Amino acid sequence: MTSPSCPAPVSGYDRVVLGHGSGGRLSHELFARVFAPLLGADAAFGLEDQAVLAAPREGRLAVTTDAFVVKPLVFPGGDIGSLAVHGTVNDLAVGGARPLCITASFILEEGLPMALLENVVQSMRRACDAIPVRLVAGDTKVVEHGKADGIFITTTGVGVVPDALALSATRARPGDRVLVSGPLGDHGIAILATRQGIDLRTALSSDSAPLHGLTGAMLAAGSGIRCMRDLTRGGLSSALNEIAAASRVGVKLVEKGIPLRPEVRGACELLGLDPLYVACEGRLVAIVDGGVADTVLEAMRRHPLGEQAAIVGSVVADHPGLVSIRTVVGGERIVALLSGEQLPRIC
Amino acid sequence: MTSPSCPAPVSGYDRVVLGHGSGGRLSHELFARVFAPLLGADAAFGLEDQAVLAAPREGRLAVTTDAFVVKPLVFPGGDIGSLAVHGTVNDLAVGGARPLCITASFILEEGLPMALLENVVQSMRRACDAIPVRLVAGDTKVVEHGKADGIFITTTGVGVVPDALALSATRARPGDRVLVSGPLGDHGIAILATRQGIDLRTALSSDSAPLHGLTGAMLAAGSGIRCMRDLTRGGLSSALNEIAAASRVGVKLVEKGIPLRPEVRGACELLGLDPLYVACEGRLVAIVDGGVADTVLEAMRRHPLGEQAAIVGSVVADHPGLVSIRTVVGGERIVALLSGEQLPRIC
Repeated sequence: MTSPSCPAPVSGYDRVVLGHGSGGRLSHELFARVFAPLLGADAAFGLEDQAVLAAPREGRLAVTTDAFVVKPLVFPGGDIGSLAVHGTVNDLAVGGARPLCITASFILEEGLPMALLENVVQSMRRACDAIPVRLVAGDTKVVEHGKADGIFITTTGVGVVPDALALSATRARPGDRVLVSGPLGDHGIAILATRQGIDLRTALSSDSAPLHGLTGAMLAAGSGIRCMRDLTRGGLSSALNEIAAASRVGVKLVEKGIPLRPEVRGACELLGLDPLYVACEGRLVAIVDGGVADTVLEAMRRHPLGEQAAIVGSVVADHPGLVSIRTVVGGERIVALLSGEQLPRIC
Repeated sequence: MTSPSCPAPVSGYDRVVLGHGSGGRLSHELFARVFAPLLGADAAFGLEDQAVLAAPREGRLAVTTDAFVVKPLVFPGGDIGSLAVHGTVNDLAVGGARPLCITASFILEEGLPMALLENVVQSMRRACDAIPVRLVAGDTKVVEHGKADGIFITTTGVGVVPDALALSATRARPGDRVLVSGPLGDHGIAILATRQGIDLRTALSSDSAPLHGLTGAMLAAGSGIRCMRDLTRGGLSSALNEIAAASRVGVKLVEKGIPLRPEVRGACELLGLDPLYVACEGRLVAIVDGGVADTVLEAMRRHPLGEQAAIVGSVVADHPGLVSIRTVVGGERIVALLSGEQLPRIC
């Protein structure tokens, strides 16, 4: 295996060409040089058309898929590769699932620098190893220059949910509390600042991180967790609106309790963005039985990804289907679903 | 549910806009109008971040993923939606796996006609229902006009392989026979003819089809099947070169035994293409113990997708790692891996 810091180009190609997606010799070389060493030589990725693994003998299967089209491909705190791993693991984690394996499909634009692809794939491997989860199958297609935008990745995750666990957006009940695991909007603002060349005068990074450890600690702390959501597109607002609608309950937030970094607050004020709508990629919201909310909060705060966890609101019988917030100046307003597009290509 | 033949536009949008990928109100409307009714209202697609299903209590899990970037999006015999379902089910089928569920992620280009998206999604639903397999989870992203090419779809399949079954590209042995399930190259030539406006003077359609029924019949017929491959990118040549390399054996083909439609033969001669490299999407090659090859062939011919199945060659100890062919004029030549790109964006 070539040293990751200085990869040799694939057969002299320093950029991706259409032939790398042909299924022929160039596809094999691309696989052997870029994907096989980095994604686990024991995986079926390449040799067979499908990976085969032991089925879990207890629990149910959880399955989730996400396409990643983030722009730029590399940003403070991560890149499209680590984001694609974290995003899918997080969709499993908030369902209470232990990740079993993931798959990745790549759509590459002709002309993509090979070194950039190698860096992204290496980043995926590091993200998988840190969890740990095995990437067991993959695919690569190449489209003409101008018909994609660098790299698009779709990751699919398969996990195992304990039989006794029933988390669902339909389970929120009046009296439940609303917990978030940390400051909102770091990912969205870090992406936006990078894309627009905005100097935030601080080193704001994406919060992109795998949440399975945090959710494991939360589930171990108490049985009163109704549901969890990671806060991606549409931010806290989308997640809570979906839960309020699915459970036919209201949600009341208290603005002053919502954790927010000063630089995110400042950037949102500057740009006219509401942080309740800005995406995170390593934060979650949990709806928790009021009787165990403090216990779950303590468990979250003991985890490195939940040190700034906070109770930010309650589930109420009022205004079913709607989310409201008591503002710092004392008023109350409805937090509706985002009506248009706030920040395209954030994930 | 709106009549599939005349779908109303989503909230008055007759084209996809960036807001349809926002995670906000437009995303919900797109899901509710286009995806939910067509892909199964009981699926988690939309309501939860992950689908949960019963785990198989016997057998192993098979997992496969593929990106589809075919151009044009609609072609004789199918479209990108049916192709994405068939391609993933076939990757499971050739591993001997029964399909358990599939997922789909969509990358849409801003400006895509909504009616085209609806037609593709309806086609996916029909393809799933015909198998049958449930599409249990999905995702949609939208990128700016000019940053993708209409619709890209990644499908991932999860299936169940019986514990006793061990199909592998490493298991070919001298004396085995090489069987193909039908005429080669229909898909590739149909796509090419559509794309280039070539009039083939016949109604050549893609062979896109789900192969799980055929593989099931083959596996039921005998235990001597070493491995199977569906013949996608790189055609028969790629599949056999991979098997020859993985098993360290030679493969000898006999050209006159290879089924080929006259119009495909004619188009290949006209365009300078070798049909051994042209993609199919509903054909497979099987390496079968010589002692049961005729039995398996009979089983294939009794299945509608294998009526023109044929024994086209043998596995030999000579020239390990290489595929050769005895031509109709009596010579012998090596059939190497495709070195460049013959037909981009065929799947």
